[in-house]
Amino acid sequence: MTQYGQVTPAIVAELSAIAGEKYVIIDKDKMEDYSHDAVTGEKYVGFPDVLVLPGSAAEIAAIVKLANRERLPIIPRGAGTGYACAAVAFGGGIMVSTERLDRILEIDEANLLMVLEPGVRTSEVQKAAHDKGYLYAGEPSSGDSSFIGGNVATNAGGIKAVKYGTTRQQVLGIELVTAEGDIVTLGGKVRKDATGYSLAQLVIGSEGTLGIITKIYIKIIPRPQKVMDLLAVFPNVEASIAIVAKILQAGILPVSVEFMDNKGIRCCESYLNEKLPHSDTGNYIIVSIEGDSEEALEDQCVEIDELCSANGASFVLVADPVKIWKARKSFGEANRARSLIFSAEDIVVPVAAIAGMVKKLTELGERYQLTIHCVAHAADGNVHADILKEDVPMEEWEQKLPLLQAEIYEFVYSIGGKLSGEHGIGYKRLELMEKFTNPVELKMMRAVKKALDPNNIMNPGKIFRVN
Amino acid sequence: MTQYGQVTPAIVAELSAIAGEKYVIIDKDKMEDYSHDAVTGEKYVGFPDVLVLPGSAAEIAAIVKLANRERLPIIPRGAGTGYACAAVAFGGGIMVSTERLDRILEIDEANLLMVLEPGVRTSEVQKAAHDKGYLYAGEPSSGDSSFIGGNVATNAGGIKAVKYGTTRQQVLGIELVTAEGDIVTLGGKVRKDATGYSLAQLVIGSEGTLGIITKIYIKIIPRPQKVMDLLAVFPNVEASIAIVAKILQAGILPVSVEFMDNKGIRCCESYLNEKLPHSDTGNYIIVSIEGDSEEALEDQCVEIDELCSANGASFVLVADPVKIWKARKSFGEANRARSLIFSAEDIVVPVAAIAGMVKKLTELGERYQLTIHCVAHAADGNVHADILKEDVPMEEWEQKLPLLQAEIYEFVYSIGGKLSGEHGIGYKRLELMEKFTNPVELKMMRAVKKALDPNNIMNPGKIFRVN
Repeated sequence: MTQYGQVTPAIVAELSAIAGEKYVIIDKDKMEDYSHDAVTGEKYVGFPDVLVLPGSAAEIAAIVKLANRERLPIIPRGAGTGYACAAVAFGGGIMVSTERLDRILEIDEANLLMVLEPGVRTSEVQKAAHDKGYLYAGEPSSGDSSFIGGNVATNAGGIKAVKYGTTRQQVLGIELVTAEGDIVTLGGKVRKDATGYSLAQLVIGSEGTLGIITKIYIKIIPRPQKVMDLLAVFPNVEASIAIVAKILQAGILPVSVEFMDNKGIRCCESYLNEKLPHSDTGNYIIVSIEGDSEEALEDQCVEIDELCSANGASFVLVADPVKIWKARKSFGEANRARSLIFSAEDIVVPVAAIAGMVKKLTELGERYQLTIHCVAHAADGNVHADILKEDVPMEEWEQKLPLLQAEIYEFVYSIGGKLSGEHGIGYKRLELMEKFTNPVELKMMRAVKKALDPNNIMNPGKIFRVN
Repeated sequence: MTQYGQVTPAIVAELSAIAGEKYVIIDKDKMEDYSHDAVTGEKYVGFPDVLVLPGSAAEIAAIVKLANRERLPIIPRGAGTGYACAAVAFGGGIMVSTERLDRILEIDEANLLMVLEPGVRTSEVQKAAHDKGYLYAGEPSSGDSSFIGGNVATNAGGIKAVKYGTTRQQVLGIELVTAEGDIVTLGGKVRKDATGYSLAQLVIGSEGTLGIITKIYIKIIPRPQKVMDLLAVFPNVEASIAIVAKILQAGILPVSVEFMDNKGIRCCESYLNEKLPHSDTGNYIIVSIEGDSEEALEDQCVEIDELCSANGASFVLVADPVKIWKARKSFGEANRARSLIFSAEDIVVPVAAIAGMVKKLTELGERYQLTIHCVAHAADGNVHADILKEDVPMEEWEQKLPLLQAEIYEFVYSIGGKLSGEHGIGYKRLELMEKFTNPVELKMMRAVKKALDPNNIMNPGKIFRVN
């Protein structure tokens, strides 16, 4: 086990000298908002010894150098919208928030890219691109509140990954304060790069364990002119999932293909207090398509309609985009309202295995007598299964959940799936990560971590234990 | 400096026991084809002590374990079509060819992916996908002869990267024999993954320095039905390059946007002994567009024609695809025919900086009195500048070339560019890599290399020196 130092008054004074006294917080009451992310439950709450809100990469570098000298854990923090407790402090240390690095530095139209600081909200990035006629294609469901830096640090996915890929595919480069406190630019304004190892790709998705991202270069593309959302309602899960491959194989590349199971739909309906179409028995497939002409969209629309109808859909409707996306995006909140304690699983499996996965989850839910609601980024094979505690006594919940998860992931790994499609591992899934990851792969990850963070100060105890 | 062992007769016997006697070669005459890649010149020729053609990942793993035990360099070898001498042995050791791992293992239509061994030729991968109605979007110009394993190891780019990205974006997973001789699968059939560090992305483009790729999972997509190639001829370089941003900003996403300068066109013309259109003074922009309907393509065609004509093109023609791509793809061969010794630079700069880059190359060519021919993957910012030796005396060439390269890359790095867009660093660009890479970035790469290959046996002396 790494031995860490203590955050003494002298260290706090030194941090104040680096970042300014008003940006160094040790009062626990003022750290409340920083003590958790979107995961609920007492065991997922933790406080750093000190919270610092630096104003520049240079200040962050100075803090990281200090942390190395004194062997203090650094916990990088974005907007705290994660689902894996990656940005929560569980062993004290210095939390470094990127919230003051909140500028859009450049919209470079000639090179079709933007340069951002990490604390810009994802929705602001989208809006800034949109206002100039462009699209930033990253769109995690938490985009209204998440920071772009957090999106990069976790390789956020979201509802447009089918067509555009995850955050990883949007990023051309990053500026990083390394775990040793150096500032380096990896990648940049170039669109291709075969100049040595792709360290940017390594850092993307490393959840703050390899450094703190202080600048981001992302791609933008001319904004598609037209968008259309279709809702296909299926009486059973298998038929709804089976349609996904048929749409893709027909050569249609939608922006989004989302699945919601009937229990999930009803839960959202009750949370929003709004009637959703055919919610009595239906399972939803929401398909968004986009293009530059009404005609092209309509042709695709007709083709999707015919495919769905021929393959078991009870209804296919042009959806009210505001209403349907509000419903889809309320899934997490709706489950939280039903049960403050719940476990949001982020299973990813080969696309064709989703129906079997959802069936397995249904069986397991019944056997364990726990409510499980499912939605899926269906064309990515990414199933969000929210397991609700509801009124199950805490002791029973704490006993049942790990057993259920073990069965879920035994199955997931047996069909070539993985623990997380987009939420990451963080603190919450660390035990599962160590249990299910191939030992050789885990050994390689640990070796890389030790090589780049020799003092193990950068977000320690996240993803895997080093020792 | 790493101290390496010797390949003794006992080692050769042990290799024969692993791979079979007929697949272990020590006769230099039989190694001729393995002693170089596409780079010409005596100093880029080198022989291993022994060449092994193993038949499985297990055999490769056994060879790598032996190499660790005896401290022997391993040089992984694909088809030898590289432009950086990454797969050439310069300090003896064991060359491991993947040519016998040449099976297409699976075309998984339900999951829209293929599973391949590394020794399958890129063109065979493309053909197998095509025959089933799909497209494998990786298309390096050397695809007829390159191996898919080499494409992954070098993150090959090519002419379709504008729309589909480089090889990195096609790969869902790899099986790797690690530098320590373990076999591990990184990624796989899942389309999204946030389960710890993306080691697959780290290994892609690492040019055989982190392990030997023994299996590859790649994406396929439904094949676009229609393709059309346009040739726009411009009287000057600036106007031809300026059109690229205008096409992209108009919301057209071509499959390819290629630039050829007039000297390059004439060189290809003379090599092919074929008249190319308007080759007297023209600079070419070749634009390929694809889609599912003739109408959609024609609309784009008209738009591109109008854009080009309004922005200085002398002529815009629908090109004969066979003829125009034969010309474009003959660029390297044409230069080789003109001058057996030439240096193929693989500069990458921000897209908007290409015109300035080509202008700078023209100036430098005149000042150094060396012929430089340019083509570019224009929408990627990737400029292939072939510097020809022609009849310059060898001594003068060897003296001039590094000075010219130093000036080229001083300029490239001053405008945010990099040493290689798609050819990689290998052995050929190692000195430039160490000179121009940010020391922090280089230190991080070295740390990763040491962590994953502690004995420095895996393709040592490529990309950078460890010691």
